Amino acid sequence: MAAAAPPPPPAPTPSPPTGVPESAPIGHPLFSRIRLATPADVPHIHKLINQMAVFERLTHLFSATESSLASTLFNSPPFHSFTIFLLEISRLPLPPLPQSPHFTPIDRVITLELPLIDPEGDQFRSNGNGDVVVAGFVLFFPNYSSFLAKPGFYVEDLFVRECYRRKGFGRMLLTAVAKQAVKMDYGRVEWVVLDWNVNAIEFYELMGAKVLSEWRICRLTGEALEAYRDA
Amino acid sequence: MAAAAPPPPPAPTPSPPTGVPESAPIGHPLFSRIRLATPADVPHIHKLINQMAVFERLTHLFSATESSLASTLFNSPPFHSFTIFLLEISRLPLPPLPQSPHFTPIDRVITLELPLIDPEGDQFRSNGNGDVVVAGFVLFFPNYSSFLAKPGFYVEDLFVRECYRRKGFGRMLLTAVAKQAVKMDYGRVEWVVLDWNVNAIEFYELMGAKVLSEWRICRLTGEALEAYRDA
Repeated sequence: MAAAAPPPPPAPTPSPPTGVPESAPIGHPLFSRIRLATPADVPHIHKLINQMAVFERLTHLFSATESSLASTLFNSPPFHSFTIFLLEISRLPLPPLPQSPHFTPIDRVITLELPLIDPEGDQFRSNGNGDVVVAGFVLFFPNYSSFLAKPGFYVEDLFVRECYRRKGFGRMLLTAVAKQAVKMDYGRVEWVVLDWNVNAIEFYELMGAKVLSEWRICRLTGEALEAYRDA
Repeated sequence: MAAAAPPPPPAPTPSPPTGVPESAPIGHPLFSRIRLATPADVPHIHKLINQMAVFERLTHLFSATESSLASTLFNSPPFHSFTIFLLEISRLPLPPLPQSPHFTPIDRVITLELPLIDPEGDQFRSNGNGDVVVAGFVLFFPNYSSFLAKPGFYVEDLFVRECYRRKGFGRMLLTAVAKQAVKMDYGRVEWVVLDWNVNAIEFYELMGAKVLSEWRICRLTGEALEAYRDA
């Protein structure tokens, strides 16, 4: 699957022939990692959600601020409420992270034929680390099946910045959520897709998901919800 | 709206004319109340979910037990995770409940022309109270809108036992969730409906909900989810 282990280290012996080291990588390696987001990541998360709103042509619905995100996220231990996995990418091996009791980061290295240029790299530099950028995220939280009497995960957002798309990172993020659900003995992972987005539907079906064709979402929001204040 | 206050007490004076008391209720009053469910309600909740599975012809998906419900519900304060409002009904005024810091029960009295016969009354007797029965429930939990940077509520189940249907109790339960969402400054209440259930869709639209026609639910479950264990 996508969340593959990094390649083995180069063999120390025998010495490679001069000029063409046997262990030299072919092409340009890209080191990626999925880790739990923290409050320090809110500025990047805010920019990613904004990009997602632009991509979905839904900027008229976008009213999140860094402050409103900071006050509504990170109020519970990871996985028990709203949780974000962040995708970080670097051209250099990623520095080790402190151990977390909640989640062991997932590393993966891919090799590109051409060097990748990230035109937004400066805006998405991660925590002052020279070459590490934030490239995407998945936001999810527990839901519940009363038939199974088991929680599951609902994936609200899955987003990868444009220059990192079509390289398996979306699958890597969704796989991380599915793997976490299995680890916690959860019964389901669910999310929604637009019915005309046939490429996304095909991708999700390849990942093992079924599209529930008969169900429709009902939403009560804005003034229609506000009307219940004095109900 | 549905969650109306009980009618005023009968006027003490002047004395009614003999034979036809002015303040006598016309018909048969039914006293109803919405309160937070507790672990003691699990046997009734289990039976209600089973009835819902029968109603939806989905008993092959029903694997909840009293034990699995008890271990997965009630692990967080109400509204912060999986939460159940229970509908109780009695032909007599409902006994007062101890004060809860989380939720003030909602009372409503309706009057029926004919006495209501509950053929399952004995199975759904509530906590040993002589005339009080459990008649329905709504199960909901927080979801999150990253565009709004606000939580909302997702309604997983809404169920009223057959003999209590078409009396406004479904609306009363859903209204209680919407009112709670407004109280907590939440941004949305969402749930799903089958696309061919035109009566339900009409009812939800009358309650102010919009049906999101383009979105489809994707579900990863069972063996397809289990396959991610070693991903």
